[in-house]
Amino acid sequence: MTSDAGPSAGADVAFGIDIGGTKVLGVALGPSERVLVEARVATPIGLSQGDVVGRGVAVAVAEAVAEVVAHLDAALDVGSSSASEAPAIGVGAPGMLDRAGRLRFSPNLPQGQGVDWHVLLSEPLPQRRILIENDANLAALAEHQLGAAQGFDDVLTVTLGTGIGGALIVDGRLRVGGHGYAGEIGHMVVDPSGPPCPCGRRGCWERYASGGGLGLLAREAAMAGRLPAVVALAGGDPESVRGEDVTAAALAGDADARQVVEQLGWWVGFGLANLTSVLDPACIVLGGGLVAAGELWFEATRAAFAELVEGGSAREPVVIVPAAFGDRAGAVGAALAARRGGLW
Amino acid sequence: MTSDAGPSAGADVAFGIDIGGTKVLGVALGPSERVLVEARVATPIGLSQGDVVGRGVAVAVAEAVAEVVAHLDAALDVGSSSASEAPAIGVGAPGMLDRAGRLRFSPNLPQGQGVDWHVLLSEPLPQRRILIENDANLAALAEHQLGAAQGFDDVLTVTLGTGIGGALIVDGRLRVGGHGYAGEIGHMVVDPSGPPCPCGRRGCWERYASGGGLGLLAREAAMAGRLPAVVALAGGDPESVRGEDVTAAALAGDADARQVVEQLGWWVGFGLANLTSVLDPACIVLGGGLVAAGELWFEATRAAFAELVEGGSAREPVVIVPAAFGDRAGAVGAALAARRGGLW
Repeated sequence: MTSDAGPSAGADVAFGIDIGGTKVLGVALGPSERVLVEARVATPIGLSQGDVVGRGVAVAVAEAVAEVVAHLDAALDVGSSSASEAPAIGVGAPGMLDRAGRLRFSPNLPQGQGVDWHVLLSEPLPQRRILIENDANLAALAEHQLGAAQGFDDVLTVTLGTGIGGALIVDGRLRVGGHGYAGEIGHMVVDPSGPPCPCGRRGCWERYASGGGLGLLAREAAMAGRLPAVVALAGGDPESVRGEDVTAAALAGDADARQVVEQLGWWVGFGLANLTSVLDPACIVLGGGLVAAGELWFEATRAAFAELVEGGSAREPVVIVPAAFGDRAGAVGAALAARRGGLW
Repeated sequence: MTSDAGPSAGADVAFGIDIGGTKVLGVALGPSERVLVEARVATPIGLSQGDVVGRGVAVAVAEAVAEVVAHLDAALDVGSSSASEAPAIGVGAPGMLDRAGRLRFSPNLPQGQGVDWHVLLSEPLPQRRILIENDANLAALAEHQLGAAQGFDDVLTVTLGTGIGGALIVDGRLRVGGHGYAGEIGHMVVDPSGPPCPCGRRGCWERYASGGGLGLLAREAAMAGRLPAVVALAGGDPESVRGEDVTAAALAGDADARQVVEQLGWWVGFGLANLTSVLDPACIVLGGGLVAAGELWFEATRAAFAELVEGGSAREPVVIVPAAFGDRAGAVGAALAARRGGLW
C-alpha cells in the first residue's frame, strides 16, 4: 500500500491507552513524541461504582481497549501490517498492579481485581505487543519526560480524578517500590474516624481531595443547608448533589459553591504537605479531571500547603504545577513505555 | 609510640556520634565494622523541651559532641596523631538538615535550628574531618549495610524515640529527596484535629506513636481513670504520668498499662500502613528507644498493619523487624558515612 498524506504507523509509532473511571482514552504517539491520533470510548458500566468482582466486566473493559486500538489502527492504516509489526500498545490501569500484570487490588476498578490483564488483553488483541502498567506511573513518565516535571529529579505526581493516583520520581527515575505498588497516595489515611472508603478503611485522603471527595464535601454542605442554589439545580435533594454540580456552580460564580471547592483545595494542600514530609519532592505535578477546574482551588491548595508543610518558610519552596498533558498524561506515558518496552 | 594490646586508631577507624534527646552517643568503628569503643554523655539541658532558639545551647551540644570525641580519642590513643590524620567524625542530628549542614527545622532539637552545624562543630574540634547528617538517614545506612535491612532494596526505617525519625532506601540506595529532608515521617498528620505537636501543627503521627506519644496516650488513659496503679506510682497526679511509667508497669504485668502500650502499637501499625501505601517497602525496620519494650507492642503493630494495609492479603507480605543495632544504629551509620566521606 502506498502512504497518503495522513499519519501512518512507522516503526516508532506506539499506542497508549488509559483505562479511566469514565472513559478509555487512547493516543498514537509518533516518532517526535507528537500525538498523531486520539480515540476514546466510554468505560463499560460504571466502573467506579459497586464492588462486584466479575470477569464479565473485566472482559468488557478489555474489549473497550481493543475497540480504541481498532480506531487507532484504522486511522493509521495499521490493518495492512502483520500484528507483530503493528505498533506496541501500552495500557494503564488504576490500582495495585504487580510486575506480572495481575491487578492485586483496585478500589476504583474492583471488577478488574485478581485478573491477569496481560492475558485478558491478549485475547481481543492477539499477537500485539502489550505492556500493562499502573496509570499514575505512566502519567508520571509522560510529565517527567515531556511535560511539567521536565528537569526535576525529585517529583511527586498526583492525579486527581474519581480517586487519587500518585507516582514518585526519585533521583531522576520513576520508582515503583518493592512490588510495584508505590504511589498509592490516595489511601493514606488522614482521619481514622473519617468517611468509609471503597478500599475498606475510613478517612483515606481520596475521600476528601478527589472528584469523589468533592461530592462528599458538597453533600455534607448541602445537608447543612449551605448550598441552596446547587441543591435546587440538582432537583432539590441534597443527597443527589455531585461534585460536578458544585464545580459548575462555582465556575458560574456561586459563592457557596466556591467555598466548597476551596475546601477541596485545602484538603489537596493538606495531603501534599504530608507527602512532602515523607518524600521531600522539588516539584509536585497535579493532573487528572479536577485540574480542569483548577483556577477555583489551586490557590487554596498552595496556601494550605505553605501553611502546613513542615519547616514552612525555613525550607526551600516546592514547585506545585498543573500537569502539561492534562487528562492525556496516562495515555501518553503508556505509549512512551510501550515504545521502550517498559518504564525505563 | 608503640601499640599495646588495646584498640588503636588505624586509617580505617571512624567515629560516629548521634545527638539524641537524652544522650550524645559515640562509637569508634574499626576496619571490620566492629564497634571498638563506645562513649556517651547526657545531652545538655532537656533538648526535647521548650522552643528557645539559643546559640548557647547549641554550643553546649557541640561541646558535648567534642567531649564524646575526646573519650574515643583517649581510648584509641588518638592524641598522638595530628588532627588531620585522626579518625573522621560523623555526626547525626534530628530534623531537616540541608546539604550544607544547616539545620533548617527541628521540632526535637529547636535550639539547634538555623545553626550551621559544620561550622559550630569545627570550633571545639579544629581540623578534624567532620560530616553532619540527619540521624535517621545514618541509622538507615547502618541497618541497610550491616543490620536488619541487609539484602533488601526497598526499605523504610523508622526510629521511635522522643519523636519519630524515618529514612527511605529505594532501589538499593538511601534517598534523601530533593533537598535532603525526605523521611520526616513523624510529621505526617493523621488527624487534623489531634493534639498539638512541637512542629506547630496538630495530629502528627509522632503525637501517637513515639515515646512522647506514649506519654500522651498514658495521660489520656490516666485522666479517664484507666491507669490507677500507674498513677499511684507516679505520685497520684494523672498529669505527671510519663511513657516510661507505663512501659515499666506493663513489663511488670499491669493489664491496664499493657493496654495503653498496645494502643501505641496500633498507632505504629496504622502509620506503617499509610507509609506502605506511599512507598511500598519490602522491609520495615523499627529502631529507637521504644523498641527495647517491643515485646509489649510489636504484635499489636503487626496485627494493625495486617488489618490496615491497602490490599491486605492480596499484596505480598511486608517484613517488619526490629533494628539490629538498637539505639546505636545512628552512631554506627555516622561512622560508616564518615569513613566514606558521605552517605554514598
